[in-house]
Amino acid sequence: MPNLYDRIQGRNTERLAALSDGIFAVAMTLLVLELHLPSAGQIHGEGELLAALGALGPQWLAYLMSFLTLGIFWAGQQTQLNHIGEGTRDLTWIHLGFLFAVTLLPLSTRLLAEFITYRSALLIYWLNILALGAMLYWSWTHATHANLIKPDTPEEVRASICKRILIAQSLYALGAALCVINSWASIAAVFLVQLNYAIAPQLWRRKHA
Amino acid sequence: MPNLYDRIQGRNTERLAALSDGIFAVAMTLLVLELHLPSAGQIHGEGELLAALGALGPQWLAYLMSFLTLGIFWAGQQTQLNHIGEGTRDLTWIHLGFLFAVTLLPLSTRLLAEFITYRSALLIYWLNILALGAMLYWSWTHATHANLIKPDTPEEVRASICKRILIAQSLYALGAALCVINSWASIAAVFLVQLNYAIAPQLWRRKHA
Amino acid sequence: MPNLYDRIQGRNTERLAALSDGIFAVAMTLLVLELHLPSAGQIHGEGELLAALGALGPQWLAYLMSFLTLGIFWAGQQTQLNHIGEGTRDLTWIHLGFLFAVTLLPLSTRLLAEFITYRSALLIYWLNILALGAMLYWSWTHATHANLIKPDTPEEVRASICKRILIAQSLYALGAALCVINSWASIAAVFLVQLNYAIAPQLWRRKHA
Amino acid sequence: MPNLYDRIQGRNTERLAALSDGIFAVAMTLLVLELHLPSAGQIHGEGELLAALGALGPQWLAYLMSFLTLGIFWAGQQTQLNHIGEGTRDLTWIHLGFLFAVTLLPLSTRLLAEFITYRSALLIYWLNILALGAMLYWSWTHATHANLIKPDTPEEVRASICKRILIAQSLYALGAALCVINSWASIAAVFLVQLNYAIAPQLWRRKHA
Repeated sequence: MPNLYDRIQGRNTERLAALSDGIFAVAMTLLVLELHLPSAGQIHGEGELLAALGALGPQWLAYLMSFLTLGIFWAGQQTQLNHIGEGTRDLTWIHLGFLFAVTLLPLSTRLLAEFITYRSALLIYWLNILALGAMLYWSWTHATHANLIKPDTPEEVRASICKRILIAQSLYALGAALCVINSWASIAAVFLVQLNYAIAPQLWRRKHA
Repeated sequence: MPNLYDRIQGRNTERLAALSDGIFAVAMTLLVLELHLPSAGQIHGEGELLAALGALGPQWLAYLMSFLTLGIFWAGQQTQLNHIGEGTRDLTWIHLGFLFAVTLLPLSTRLLAEFITYRSALLIYWLNILALGAMLYWSWTHATHANLIKPDTPEEVRASICKRILIAQSLYALGAALCVINSWASIAAVFLVQLNYAIAPQLWRRKHA
Repeated sequence: MPNLYDRIQGRNTERLAALSDGIFAVAMTLLVLELHLPSAGQIHGEGELLAALGALGPQWLAYLMSFLTLGIFWAGQQTQLNHIGEGTRDLTWIHLGFLFAVTLLPLSTRLLAEFITYRSALLIYWLNILALGAMLYWSWTHATHANLIKPDTPEEVRASICKRILIAQSLYALGAALCVINSWASIAAVFLVQLNYAIAPQLWRRKHA
Repeated sequence: MPNLYDRIQGRNTERLAALSDGIFAVAMTLLVLELHLPSAGQIHGEGELLAALGALGPQWLAYLMSFLTLGIFWAGQQTQLNHIGEGTRDLTWIHLGFLFAVTLLPLSTRLLAEFITYRSALLIYWLNILALGAMLYWSWTHATHANLIKPDTPEEVRASICKRILIAQSLYALGAALCVINSWASIAAVFLVQLNYAIAPQLWRRKHA
């Protein structure tokens, strides 16, 4: 088994970051391709056009949710990589696993938009979010044990990254569990969790500053 | 609320720039996919082929307009980020909002190309441009208040960036308002504003240099 | 023949890396577009939805295999470029040939997913993997002969890169040869080789550490 | 007219390079989407599958030609940007024009593959190549006049870049002109010119070294 080769592989976290930015960029933009606009032949007036666009409502919602999700996990991965000095072969493959879950998100989003009242579609969407969180958690614990974290990273930062993932994933799991009661309640809860991570802290901080 | 985590998030403006370049690159290239070429079975001679390509006229126009728009806002975002030293969590999310509007542009372009005589299609296209401008304006005012701008940035540069956005958006709004009179007049006006920002200043400068 | 121009061309391995990351990112994400989800009209219950998703089995397998393949070769190319100081025109074109094989992988994957029991589909898939390995091998031998490898690269690293490619390609060839007996046995063998390069060494190392 | 703003715009050639790499990466990979594979229902044996793949011949040829073209112009743009120290607003827009022609190449390639015996399809393809060359020529003359070229660039390098573009474009024009006689002769000539820039100089140099 070429152990030497494994030692020299995957050192370059900058290229990992560049590949990640590329995959996130394509996934974020591909989502739009799923939004099927009405064609000119079907529409006979301004009112009909607006009505047809409004009927795409669930798809817009799913699109916005997925963009938020991708944004949240892009920011989360970036925060980790900023604190990791040098990569390893294993870290590279953990992140490739993370990126695999990223490429699946346009698919599970499309599934959710098409079957928005189906519990299985919602659970698959949640499993995708769970996989994203689990890979990032694994990445950070691996980086901790393999001594890859930059020495100037304060102790409380190290702990806060794991805590953050656990809290967020608990909220997502609670939201997804609501689908036992009602699919729409569950989607609303997941959406609120996402908005919270994107927007709410800013408002909260202003109030308490 | 994990305030520490929020402080360490989004510091890396280089990764924000890389994600932005990726999203702009995909959006600029995706636009071409909307141009549906005639297939070999429908065409029976050189003349028919040229006629069929000519009939795609409104789509070519919409494509060119959108490429110009994306180019203008790509250059605008780049100019801002060049003068911003370090990012924050909030700045990251403002720019993710900006990028969300970028991913919508291929969609509103497709809508405009399909419904080029509909006022609502034109207004949606203009709302997209307005959103792009508003997010960039917000980004710069946020960077100003949060002291993120590089200290070597001269005072007049700081002011010129906001002024530039306000003037451009006023011209776009005037152009869009023309659709009360006529859709084509409105499109022509928006197109001229875009050409002005891409090409005209160069000619103007040469004359007065 | 403009020899001077050839000497100044292709020096920048960073741009080669950036183009490569972009092409890998698009290829990895495009693969998902091939997975055709059922539409809402065809499905009448949760059970039917899960059954329809299960029926996409061969496509999921092909997708996972191809993501693994792209990940393996991305890591392989990165390892080489990390040890190459400056590029040349020839090295650039060898890597463009490598990237051409990368862009073909979504296509041969689609072919394999559609014709998973056809030997010719499997052989074309294998030829694609062979082309990827051959170009990387050529790249390293060229870099060795043209003195492009960074001087601080130890002698055993230089040898291990070629050995690694030869062993991996021998295993792929053996796996592909199994298709004389049975297509599925052959796919299983290729899949195991890929998993070995992505995951197994880690387990192996832990046991023997 | 906000002249100050124009002066601070477009300075960052690294972001221009990153956007270019992204657009080239998407364009190179998108080309593959145009290759329509046969579906399982149409094929009833190994022989039929190979025959169906063989029937895609003109499309494979067009794909290979376009990948070569994109590779040639990517290398050409990279060579220029390596020698340019700082960008300007005008240089940015010249390169955005160049990138616009890059995004059109998948389209003119698709046109050529669909209408490979039509002179107008070939002429449009050639016009696309001409536009790519013209923008690069403009970029270099602009960089020369605006004093953007790095001071350590030798005089003969400056001249060789323009000469290279002129010779290549003359050969392309000659190849395209052959379509007066025969479309296939013309395609063959353009293809040979491209191969010459990608591969031949290497063989030539070896012979004369």
